[in-house]
Amino acid sequence: MPTILTGDRPTGPLHLGHYVGSLQNRVRLQSHHRQFVMIADMQALTDTEPAKVRANLLEVVFDYLAVGIDPVQSTIFIQSQVPELAELTVHFLNLVTLARLERNPTVKEEIRQRGFERDVPAGFLTYPVSQAADITAFKATLVPVGADQQPMIEQTNEIVRRFNALTGSSVLVECEALIPEQGRLPGLDGGAKMGKSLGNALALSASPDEISAAVRRMYTDRNHLRIEDPGQVEGNVAFAYLDAFDPDAAEVERLKSQYRRGGLADTTVKRRLEDILQAHLAPIRKQRAAFAQDPAGARNILLEGCVRARAVAAQTLREVRQALGIEYFA
Amino acid sequence: MPTILTGDRPTGPLHLGHYVGSLQNRVRLQSHHRQFVMIADMQALTDTEPAKVRANLLEVVFDYLAVGIDPVQSTIFIQSQVPELAELTVHFLNLVTLARLERNPTVKEEIRQRGFERDVPAGFLTYPVSQAADITAFKATLVPVGADQQPMIEQTNEIVRRFNALTGSSVLVECEALIPEQGRLPGLDGGAKMGKSLGNALALSASPDEISAAVRRMYTDRNHLRIEDPGQVEGNVAFAYLDAFDPDAAEVERLKSQYRRGGLADTTVKRRLEDILQAHLAPIRKQRAAFAQDPAGARNILLEGCVRARAVAAQTLREVRQALGIEYFA
Repeated sequence: MPTILTGDRPTGPLHLGHYVGSLQNRVRLQSHHRQFVMIADMQALTDTEPAKVRANLLEVVFDYLAVGIDPVQSTIFIQSQVPELAELTVHFLNLVTLARLERNPTVKEEIRQRGFERDVPAGFLTYPVSQAADITAFKATLVPVGADQQPMIEQTNEIVRRFNALTGSSVLVECEALIPEQGRLPGLDGGAKMGKSLGNALALSASPDEISAAVRRMYTDRNHLRIEDPGQVEGNVAFAYLDAFDPDAAEVERLKSQYRRGGLADTTVKRRLEDILQAHLAPIRKQRAAFAQDPAGARNILLEGCVRARAVAAQTLREVRQALGIEYFA
Repeated sequence: MPTILTGDRPTGPLHLGHYVGSLQNRVRLQSHHRQFVMIADMQALTDTEPAKVRANLLEVVFDYLAVGIDPVQSTIFIQSQVPELAELTVHFLNLVTLARLERNPTVKEEIRQRGFERDVPAGFLTYPVSQAADITAFKATLVPVGADQQPMIEQTNEIVRRFNALTGSSVLVECEALIPEQGRLPGLDGGAKMGKSLGNALALSASPDEISAAVRRMYTDRNHLRIEDPGQVEGNVAFAYLDAFDPDAAEVERLKSQYRRGGLADTTVKRRLEDILQAHLAPIRKQRAAFAQDPAGARNILLEGCVRARAVAAQTLREVRQALGIEYFA
């Protein structure tokens, strides 16, 4: 079975963007892949305060379980509880130049977004190296990422090749990006990306009222003022969500044509979407509430996942150390 | 007892520069300090090939034992065998900005010397962070360093203060530089620093012939052509070594005056110095040869030192993780 490494930063509740972009794929993939799902608390700590990170750990697990990630088929673990990842990171830091890290377009963009400039924390600049450690520790060959994360995969494979060449070994394994077929779900406001910090997200755990309110405020086509006017489907968040959630694709296409021609009210589209979202999220919310009743159970799932993950990472680290010639006492 | 962290990169045999600058102080300090002596193999691996690092580990231990470092009083350990140091490094990387690392004058100078420019490996640029991890893991309050290494101590203390402030704790302890009273021993060629890679070093394990040859080629005063000419003592390596090794300081002062006035031959000075060095190094060489007969014994000393060092570092790491709020399962 091919090995997958995937995961999330525990910086807030997971939302529909996570669901469409990754969670539903994990559920689909877990039966025929060896899947490691990492809660990236260390990565979150590069720019988020510890208390917030801590508070979100179990929330993320509740989200995972609610959508159907099966902790028997998938290994759910916390990054910080696998210290082998930190050690691998330190070994890999010797294999990457500062110039290479600064050239990484994903990191460059994130540094720009956060206004860090030269005051970027070293831990933030080097997080592609930490990601390479996460991926290679599990010898993952598939890494589900957005198209914009492709440079991270390239960076990882560069490190893999350098390490193997330097040590004359084949300990580390190259990986490839698994870019989801379904494109990224836009934010409620029409922004390209849904994010809690962007204020345009709908949480997986949203109440019926929150779902209603989200659909009501959802961006459609600002020029579609009267029902009989032709409307635009591209960039129309309501249709993007119908594409993502409506099981009747033919009906969605019919509605799109009608909207384009004119004669279909936003309220009609939104009513349909709201019904679908309410129906889709109700069982998830119910499941989530049930799992949230048993925090000790979720803790145990995490604890067991950490033990499993650690055993795998420790084996890779042993091989890495052997290849580097620093297993003096083994 | 105050705690000391000190150590060496295992990149070659130790030489007289190490002896004067640090080894003899360690022997003096070990009885009334808690002294950790780290063989910095990970730091060496940032710019030295693994095979060379590996080959030098036991050599360094033989040097230590030969000069009188007592493995009961001092804990001799290998950096890579204490993986807690790598994990601390990763935590600390979040507390230092890229700009701060680039401003570090010691690192700046070393980057210049090695011609790295922007191609500096990330592991090299961040090595002050790794040093901060080494120092704080043992809660060392005294770090013997040359005056030029003061910026490293400042960087460590900045990390200590940031960590304690961020976590509202007092887990980490500030340290101060312990700058040796005896100045740095110049190289045989008169260069400010003795270094194996500079080709101006005399190894602690040098044979009598090597010692003779080294004294013969030693830089004195290039303008002191005839015995009766006045000679210069400043920058004169033979006198610098007499200052370091001659037990009769008054006689050295007398010789200096005579040399300055004129009437003292370089050969006379060098003969005295050679006798002193031969006498000083003979027992060290003999001891070293005896310890080198028992590599298994040296290995055991290292193994035991690593176990002791690891216990201390692991305790600090637990406190660090607790302060960061990531000891979820403890």
